[in-house]
Amino acid sequence: MEPKGTTAENVFQLQELWSAFSDDQRFAYFSALPRDQAEDLFFDLSSEEQAEIMRRLAPQEKRSWIRLLEPDDAADLIQECSKSEHHELLNLLDIATRNEVSALMAYAEDVAGGLMNPHYARLRPELSTGEAISYLQRQSREQAELISYAYVVDVDQKLVGLVSFRDLCAASTTQPVSAVMTTDVITVSDQMDQEQISHLFSETDLMAFPVVDEQGRMKGIVTIDDIVDVVHEEATEDIQKLGGTEALDAPYMRTKMIPMVQKRGGWLLILFLSEMLTATAMGFYEKEIARAVVLALFVPLIISSGGNAGSQATTLVIRAMALGEVNLRDIWKVAGRELATGIILGCMLGIVGFLRIVVWQTFGLTPYGPHYLLIAITIFCSLIGVVAWGTIVGAILPFILRACGTDPATASTPFVATLVDVTGLVIYFTTASIMLHGTLL
Amino acid sequence: MEPKGTTAENVFQLQELWSAFSDDQRFAYFSALPRDQAEDLFFDLSSEEQAEIMRRLAPQEKRSWIRLLEPDDAADLIQECSKSEHHELLNLLDIATRNEVSALMAYAEDVAGGLMNPHYARLRPELSTGEAISYLQRQSREQAELISYAYVVDVDQKLVGLVSFRDLCAASTTQPVSAVMTTDVITVSDQMDQEQISHLFSETDLMAFPVVDEQGRMKGIVTIDDIVDVVHEEATEDIQKLGGTEALDAPYMRTKMIPMVQKRGGWLLILFLSEMLTATAMGFYEKEIARAVVLALFVPLIISSGGNAGSQATTLVIRAMALGEVNLRDIWKVAGRELATGIILGCMLGIVGFLRIVVWQTFGLTPYGPHYLLIAITIFCSLIGVVAWGTIVGAILPFILRACGTDPATASTPFVATLVDVTGLVIYFTTASIMLHGTLL
Repeated sequence: MEPKGTTAENVFQLQELWSAFSDDQRFAYFSALPRDQAEDLFFDLSSEEQAEIMRRLAPQEKRSWIRLLEPDDAADLIQECSKSEHHELLNLLDIATRNEVSALMAYAEDVAGGLMNPHYARLRPELSTGEAISYLQRQSREQAELISYAYVVDVDQKLVGLVSFRDLCAASTTQPVSAVMTTDVITVSDQMDQEQISHLFSETDLMAFPVVDEQGRMKGIVTIDDIVDVVHEEATEDIQKLGGTEALDAPYMRTKMIPMVQKRGGWLLILFLSEMLTATAMGFYEKEIARAVVLALFVPLIISSGGNAGSQATTLVIRAMALGEVNLRDIWKVAGRELATGIILGCMLGIVGFLRIVVWQTFGLTPYGPHYLLIAITIFCSLIGVVAWGTIVGAILPFILRACGTDPATASTPFVATLVDVTGLVIYFTTASIMLHGTLL
Repeated sequence: MEPKGTTAENVFQLQELWSAFSDDQRFAYFSALPRDQAEDLFFDLSSEEQAEIMRRLAPQEKRSWIRLLEPDDAADLIQECSKSEHHELLNLLDIATRNEVSALMAYAEDVAGGLMNPHYARLRPELSTGEAISYLQRQSREQAELISYAYVVDVDQKLVGLVSFRDLCAASTTQPVSAVMTTDVITVSDQMDQEQISHLFSETDLMAFPVVDEQGRMKGIVTIDDIVDVVHEEATEDIQKLGGTEALDAPYMRTKMIPMVQKRGGWLLILFLSEMLTATAMGFYEKEIARAVVLALFVPLIISSGGNAGSQATTLVIRAMALGEVNLRDIWKVAGRELATGIILGCMLGIVGFLRIVVWQTFGLTPYGPHYLLIAITIFCSLIGVVAWGTIVGAILPFILRACGTDPATASTPFVATLVDVTGLVIYFTTASIMLHGTLL
């Protein structure tokens, strides 16, 4: 009576082995497994991996594999394949499932309709609990993901209540289902975005939500296990955008060279073209630089400090927006906080910058000439200005993008840094012109 | 028979209202609610918010509220309070719960033991299914999170199997539980890290895992709804670190000014001190700059391109590591890919940079002098070198950090940018010395 005990370690080992395989090796391994083990493996794979295996199967074998899947999983698998293969794959399904799968494929992948399973345990309110129990027990396990709960719908498929299998068993068998069910059910619209659904799961501690269309008709259920993947995906997208690339939409190691270069090259080029403005901006101050080369030495230090402060602010605000902690109407509150934070941080760096020049000069490490104190004051003031400005730009940009209907995560950290580089130069050289007028300049 | 129907919109509205309230307003609102609604609200709040309410309750009221919570939730609430309050709060619990909660608090918050619920439906293998059903029905709903599954343990509390409530009902009532249960159960160790548990949920489509200690004794269950929050938290931490701050560990809007400045200022200062090396590096080339001021104009453009390319690479690699797509042993594969990508991207930017100079010169927008072609070639070669170098540094750094046992996300994008700024300057000025030797320099 020892459990066969798949420990978590076994699952990870298998997964690690699997991900180290090439596509050919994976298929050979899959084909060599006895049918029951192959089925277990097939269920655990991602839709992308399932599609890869389907592509390699002999035509007569495909049918038996795709029919194993729940309609929502079959729809995901088919959507991983090219449009030209959709028709062939749909035709492998029996008519009822084919209709369900086609209906699911009509929804966008990232809304409730595209995530839901159209199979769920369904009861009529007027059934007796005794009938309900034996009806539910006849439904095979494959037919309903969450048999522990049954949804009560009327003749128009409108959702009227929810009942647990356990409450049915506890009731006397002659009571109608409507007497045992709860009518306080949280429903989600079939068009609700997956990110909102994930917040709803966080906020309610429920395991599944019924999905209803505009007319209140029940269309399926979304379960929390589908949402864990969604949460991972959304975070990955945000992280990749923040890092200054387009979202890869595929695992890093499986992204081929050309799409990889496209997704990174596009943004890199935009950033490069914007950053060219720094050369233009510095061109304006060419004479000042020629007269006081010392000014050029601090350019990278000053502008990168603004960029770093901006990256911090934009990252914090974008994440807070994604988690729903910050909304559009919080803009002035956030701007106030960030301005104060930016000035404090700027003073901090300004003091360090000031000391650096004074100390280096005093110990003769780098001689800045007789006007070193003026240079130190220039650096001090510039750092306050640039850091405060970078912070406020980084904090406000996500609000502007969101108000325009764009994903706030488009304000990637390199983008904010680039914006702040150009304006930072102007702040720096303007401060220098004022401070050093009549002495160095 | 219309459902009272809390729609998802209601949940969000309530949540939005709640988060717009100040702490005082929240407590006033909470106190004004009738007990049953207040209880519903209390269950939906985060541990931090529950702790805030507990702090404001009259001493005699605290007991009735903390006793509503499951042991794992009570432990989370207590851990949100300061150490000095722990003893008082623990004493509000009855002895059995107090022992359970203390046991949970002994675990780190981010391992299975700290996440698990010690209450679960527990059966003996020798019980008849009939006895098992009536036993489970007597256990109140509050006593076991997932009553749809019961765990079968022997006299030593060792896990021997798992049985669904539904399978119990389907069996004849005289069969022993051991004949109906499945022995193929995936268990997790009480020391397993929460990030690994979240991967396990993604890979298996299960809703709960039994948690066992080193001796194989069952200690509790972790359920998938706890993991959704974990996945959000882990992503938030990674995003904040990538943006160059310490993880805030609290919602943005509720982080007070001093911790906010500390968490950002520390990194900003480290970055600033490292970036000071750019001033030193540029100091070495002061003579070259004085002779050819034009070189200084391109400094921000060149070094930021390296920084941006590095940010992209480091972000992609860190996320792939967090998702388990890339492991330490993949370092050479990743390095190869990134070197190739970096060279392609560098050539792309190099060509644009080259054209910029030639076009601006030809149309007289900025006159770069008779040696403009040499300058253009210097920019072209430097960009290839800096972008390829930035890419490879950004890609390798997370591997090095991980090999040292540090969180790879410490390689924030500003950190990579800073590293690349200093080395980028050296690449740029070395290329310039070679290219322009005998002409401009």
